[in-house]
Amino acid sequence: MARALKITCRKDMDVSAAIERLTSLLGERLSLAEAVRIQHADDPTWNPALPPDAVAFAESEAEVAEIVRICADCRVPLIPYGAGTSLEGHIAAPCGGISLDLSRMNAILEVRPEDLDCRVQPGVTRRQLNSYLRDTGLFFPIDPGADATIGGMVSTRASGTNAVRYGTMAENVKALRVVLANGEIIHTGSRARKSASGYDLTRLFVGAEGTLGIITEITLKLHGIPETVIAGICNFPDIGAACEAVIETIQIDLPVARIELLDAATIAMVNAYSDLDLPERPTLFVEFAGTGTAIHEQIEIFTGIVQDHGGVPGTWAEREEDRRRLWRARHDVFWAAKSANPGMVAMTTDVCVPISRLAECVTETQKDMRAHDLSGAIVGHVGDGNFHVILFAPPNDDVQKERIEAFAERLVERALAMDGTATGEHGIGMGKLAYMEKEHGRALHAMRAIKQALDPLNILNPGKVLPPETSLHKG
Amino acid sequence: MARALKITCRKDMDVSAAIERLTSLLGERLSLAEAVRIQHADDPTWNPALPPDAVAFAESEAEVAEIVRICADCRVPLIPYGAGTSLEGHIAAPCGGISLDLSRMNAILEVRPEDLDCRVQPGVTRRQLNSYLRDTGLFFPIDPGADATIGGMVSTRASGTNAVRYGTMAENVKALRVVLANGEIIHTGSRARKSASGYDLTRLFVGAEGTLGIITEITLKLHGIPETVIAGICNFPDIGAACEAVIETIQIDLPVARIELLDAATIAMVNAYSDLDLPERPTLFVEFAGTGTAIHEQIEIFTGIVQDHGGVPGTWAEREEDRRRLWRARHDVFWAAKSANPGMVAMTTDVCVPISRLAECVTETQKDMRAHDLSGAIVGHVGDGNFHVILFAPPNDDVQKERIEAFAERLVERALAMDGTATGEHGIGMGKLAYMEKEHGRALHAMRAIKQALDPLNILNPGKVLPPETSLHKG
Repeated sequence: MARALKITCRKDMDVSAAIERLTSLLGERLSLAEAVRIQHADDPTWNPALPPDAVAFAESEAEVAEIVRICADCRVPLIPYGAGTSLEGHIAAPCGGISLDLSRMNAILEVRPEDLDCRVQPGVTRRQLNSYLRDTGLFFPIDPGADATIGGMVSTRASGTNAVRYGTMAENVKALRVVLANGEIIHTGSRARKSASGYDLTRLFVGAEGTLGIITEITLKLHGIPETVIAGICNFPDIGAACEAVIETIQIDLPVARIELLDAATIAMVNAYSDLDLPERPTLFVEFAGTGTAIHEQIEIFTGIVQDHGGVPGTWAEREEDRRRLWRARHDVFWAAKSANPGMVAMTTDVCVPISRLAECVTETQKDMRAHDLSGAIVGHVGDGNFHVILFAPPNDDVQKERIEAFAERLVERALAMDGTATGEHGIGMGKLAYMEKEHGRALHAMRAIKQALDPLNILNPGKVLPPETSLHKG
Repeated sequence: MARALKITCRKDMDVSAAIERLTSLLGERLSLAEAVRIQHADDPTWNPALPPDAVAFAESEAEVAEIVRICADCRVPLIPYGAGTSLEGHIAAPCGGISLDLSRMNAILEVRPEDLDCRVQPGVTRRQLNSYLRDTGLFFPIDPGADATIGGMVSTRASGTNAVRYGTMAENVKALRVVLANGEIIHTGSRARKSASGYDLTRLFVGAEGTLGIITEITLKLHGIPETVIAGICNFPDIGAACEAVIETIQIDLPVARIELLDAATIAMVNAYSDLDLPERPTLFVEFAGTGTAIHEQIEIFTGIVQDHGGVPGTWAEREEDRRRLWRARHDVFWAAKSANPGMVAMTTDVCVPISRLAECVTETQKDMRAHDLSGAIVGHVGDGNFHVILFAPPNDDVQKERIEAFAERLVERALAMDGTATGEHGIGMGKLAYMEKEHGRALHAMRAIKQALDPLNILNPGKVLPPETSLHKG
C-alpha cells in the first residue's frame, strides 16, 4: 500500500457496547480471538494487518441488518469481509470496529438459464459458482485470478482476464440487495436486461468497496460456454513489440477472449513454478472463443499481427486440460513471483491506460525499474490497457519498501498523465487514497456528498475510497 | 404521460431576478418568446406542454456554470434541453423556470480512432456524429430512433435497436464533464477502458435526467463498422410465436445485431407510410453483423429457429441502401402510426421484462388491448425484452385518454410483476413518477438522499425522476 494517509476516526465509538450486543445476537459467531482478528485484516501483500476489535460471522440478511443497526447505534466501524483476497487494504480496520465476515452466506439461490442470470449470496466464490453451473452450459466469466467471493468482486468492481470480452463487474451485475447504513434493506435494478428507471444505484454500489452499504444478494448475468475455445502463446523480441501487437488487435476490434502480457522475468518465474519451458521473452497468452470457423479466421488474423511485430506465434491449444494448464500458469503468477523471492514480502501495483498508450506506459515503466534497480514481474490484462507490477522487499527493509512505493507512485502519475486511472481493478482501499484527488479533482466533493448522504455516521468501512478531507484543495 | 403526480414547487424562487441576470449574461440568447417557450416544453406525445419562464441558449461550459449559479442564487428551476425528443415529459417545466437549451454546444471535440473513442459536446446529435465519423471506419451504435442529442441520450440512458449487441448508454459512456448544482465543474471517469477508482459517478449521471447535474461534455466509446451486415424480415402466425423465436435466439446467445418486433397492425401502418408490401402478420426485423462466414452460419441457425416456431423467413438484404430502407421503415413506426391516426394525439408506453417472460407479457398485453377495445402499434426491441405500445386518442377525448392511461398502468404493473422495469429506455420524466415507489421501494430513499446531497436546493429539473415525498410509504 503506497503512502497511506492518516485516517481520522470517530471519538465517540463504543466498541464494548457493540461487542456485548453482537455477542448476544450471534453467540459464538462473534469472535474476539486474536488469530481470527488478524486473519481478517491480513491480505497477500505487505499492507499492515490492522485488525478489527472483533469478527462477526453473519448467516442471513436479517442478521446483517441487525449488525448494522447495532454498529450504527454504537458508532462502531463495520468492515465487510469476503475471502480476504483484495490487495489495497480494503479489509484493514484502521479505526478498529467489527469485521463482518459474509463467507457463510454462500448459497446459490437460483439459476435461471432461460434468462441467462442467477441470484447468489455475497459469500459465494466464483469457483463455487462455476462448479455449480457446470452442467447448465452457462458460466460466470469474471475472473480476477484469486477465488474471490462474488460480494467482494462486486465491491471492488473486479475484472481480470475475461474482461476484454465480457466486461467487468460493472457490466455483469443486474441487481443487488443491500443493507444501508441505517439498517434499511433495499433492492436495486431488476431482472430485465436494461432499464431507464431512476438512478443507477446498482452501479453506484458496484465498486463502492463496502463504504455505501453491505451487499447481501447479487443477481449476475451468465453467459453461454462458447462452442470452441482455443488458447495460445506468442513471444516477442521486446515488451514494446508485444504491446504494439495488443494495441493493433484491439484497434481492429478482433474479438479476442483474453489477451495477457507477461514480461521475460515473469516467464522465468512461471517456468520454474509451473514446470513449463517457455522461451524467456515477453509473451502474450491469448484466447479466442466462439464457433470453430470464426475462431480460425480470427487466429489467422492475429497470427499476422504477431508476425508484423516480430513475434513468434506459438502453438495453439484446444483441449480443455491444455488450456487449463496454460491459464493456471497465468493465474499463478503472483505465487510464482512469491516463490522466486523466498522470505520476501510483496507489493502489487495496478494501473490502466488508454489502449493507445499501453506500449509507452509499459516500456517507460520497465525503464524506470531498471533505472532504480528494481526487479519484479510485469503482467497484465493488456487488452484493457491494464497491467500490474509485482515487487518484493525483505520484510524489515524499509528503505527498499520506500523505493518500491516511490516507484509505484511514479507509475500511477504516469498512468494519470496518459488519461488513465490509478487502478484498473484492484480498487482504492487504503493503498490508493493518496491518488484520489489527483485523479478525480472536484468530483471527490460529489463522492463525499454521496457518502455523507448514505452513511452519515461514517461507520461503513471508514478510511477507504475517500481520502481524509484535509488533503483536498479548497475553493 | 400516465397519472402525473402533483409536484411541490419552491415558494421562494425569484424568476424575475434570474431573468434579469441571465439577460445581462446572454443578451438575445435568453428568450422570453411564448412560441420558443412552448416549443421547449412540447414533446411528440400528448404530455401537456408546461412551458418554462424563459429559454437560455448556452454556448460554453463556463456559461452553463454561470447560468447554474444564477439559478441557484435565485432558487429557479433549470430544465436541460437537447432536441426535445424525449417522451415522458422530461422537458416540461411544472414549476416554471429556465429551459437550458444545449443544442448550440454541438462541437465534436476530438475523435481518437486509436482508442475507439471520441469527445463531444452535449448538443451533438447522433446522426451528426455518425456523419462526421463516416470516413473513419467507426460508428456510434446507440440508436433511439429519433435524432436525439448525445447529452439527452446520456441523461435518459437511451438505447434502441442496437442495444441488444452494443449495450445502452450505460455501457457506452467512458467519461463526462458535468456542472453540479452549485456551479462547480467536475469530470468523471477516464479514457481507460475500465477503472476501479472510486464511485462510478459516470453511471450515476447516465440516466439521471438532468436532476443531478448538467452534462457539458461526453467521452463516448466508438465501434468498428462491421465488415458485413445482413438484415432480414420474417413473419409469424401469431405474436407469441414471434416472441418465442426471439427468446430462443437470445437464450442460445446467437449474436444478433438487432431484433425488432412489429405486430400485424403496425405492419399495416408501415406498409402504408413507407410504401412497402409486407405480409400483415407479426414480423421480426433482424440484422446480423460481422465477417461473412460467421454471419452466414448465424443466419442459418436463426432461420431454423424461425421455422421451428412456424415463421416464414423472408429475404435477406446485404446492400446498404436496402438495409437502410428497411430500418428507415422500422424507425418511422411512430410517424406511420401517427399518419394512420390523423388528427389524433399519441401516447407511447415502454416496458422491459426478463427475456423469458417476453411472449407472455406481449400476448397478455395484446389481450388486454382487445378486451378494452384499444387499437395501436406494438413494437419493440424484443432482444432486450423491451417493447412499446403506441396508442391514440382524439385531442379532447378525456375518456379515451383515461382508458389508455389505465391500460398503460396495467402494462407497467404486468411488467413489474414479471420482475421487469417500468421503462426500458424512455425514462421516468414526469410520466412514470407514479411507478417509482412500486418498482424501487425503499431504494427511493437512497435516490432521494443522493438528490438531496447533490442538489440541495432542488433546482435541477425538479419534479422529474423522484415522485413527491408524500406518495412514499413511511416506516
